[in-house]
Amino acid sequence: MNKTIEDILGRRSIRAYQDKPIPEEDLKTIIKAGLYAPSAKNKQEWHFTVITNKEVIDQMSGMAVEGMKRLELDMNDDDHIFYHAPVVIVISSKIAGFSGINVGCAVQNIVLASMALGYGSCIIGQTRYMYHKANKIDVDKLLKIPEGYEHDISICLGYPNQEAPAQKPRKEKIVDYIL
Amino acid sequence: MNKTIEDILGRRSIRAYQDKPIPEEDLKTIIKAGLYAPSAKNKQEWHFTVITNKEVIDQMSGMAVEGMKRLELDMNDDDHIFYHAPVVIVISSKIAGFSGINVGCAVQNIVLASMALGYGSCIIGQTRYMYHKANKIDVDKLLKIPEGYEHDISICLGYPNQEAPAQKPRKEKIVDYIL
Repeated sequence: MNKTIEDILGRRSIRAYQDKPIPEEDLKTIIKAGLYAPSAKNKQEWHFTVITNKEVIDQMSGMAVEGMKRLELDMNDDDHIFYHAPVVIVISSKIAGFSGINVGCAVQNIVLASMALGYGSCIIGQTRYMYHKANKIDVDKLLKIPEGYEHDISICLGYPNQEAPAQKPRKEKIVDYIL
Repeated sequence: MNKTIEDILGRRSIRAYQDKPIPEEDLKTIIKAGLYAPSAKNKQEWHFTVITNKEVIDQMSGMAVEGMKRLELDMNDDDHIFYHAPVVIVISSKIAGFSGINVGCAVQNIVLASMALGYGSCIIGQTRYMYHKANKIDVDKLLKIPEGYEHDISICLGYPNQEAPAQKPRKEKIVDYIL
């Protein structure tokens, strides 16, 4: 099968990682893939923070867990929202008409490039809960998010420490045709 | 180079198409790629309308152009927002926390799968202007958009009738590291 189609259909969310860094060259390729995503009118109004510092990754997870507990979501203190992955990429953007879709294109390029190079990844929305524990200025400063940008979503990645899970069933009635 | 990375880095917006339909099997693969995109909590709250009917494609373009003219945007009557591509995919979704990002992931899978199979594509935001010409109920009915869903964005695709344009320069200062 076409390798690109194979990667698109074979990508799964990976939730267990080896304690082993990703080689710098591969990480650069993965980030480049994100930067090459299309954006409305090619404005590229997004920002990526690439975090390999374990202490900061753990701190982020702890903040998000605390934020979720404050919202009375069912969390344990030792839950780790990044599954102890060695790399976290935080994406933020200027909020505008198509910013969510732009960010999604970059996210998908990053997870597919990771897959293509043999790494596992998981898209993590829970980083938004950091802002329920700490104030925006402090979180944005920690994560080097530029002024005027809002945190959208994160991705964790690394060498997988599990088999890829089965594809969850796709819902029906999603596609209509006008022939 | 890794074929998937090559397709990710090589994808460009194509704005001229041959008057030639895409074989059904390839179109199915492209749509499947969209359906296999990740979505928050795997809710798959999106909808794809696949349009190969030339009259409907032209009608949509005409409505969008009229909508833009009503907004005093500079448009000519013979502008075609889909560049006369033989296929248009309209994406809509239930608006929720991550719906824009979910849709972006599906969009990127569709344009990459198109690229992988040798087709050109272009992401078209201008279909939103149809709603400046006609009312939501009528547009949604024409496009088979389910109740409770909002139109997000469209993609046109087909055999390219141009060389891929050069990559536009990527902006600097987009990436920060926390090592």
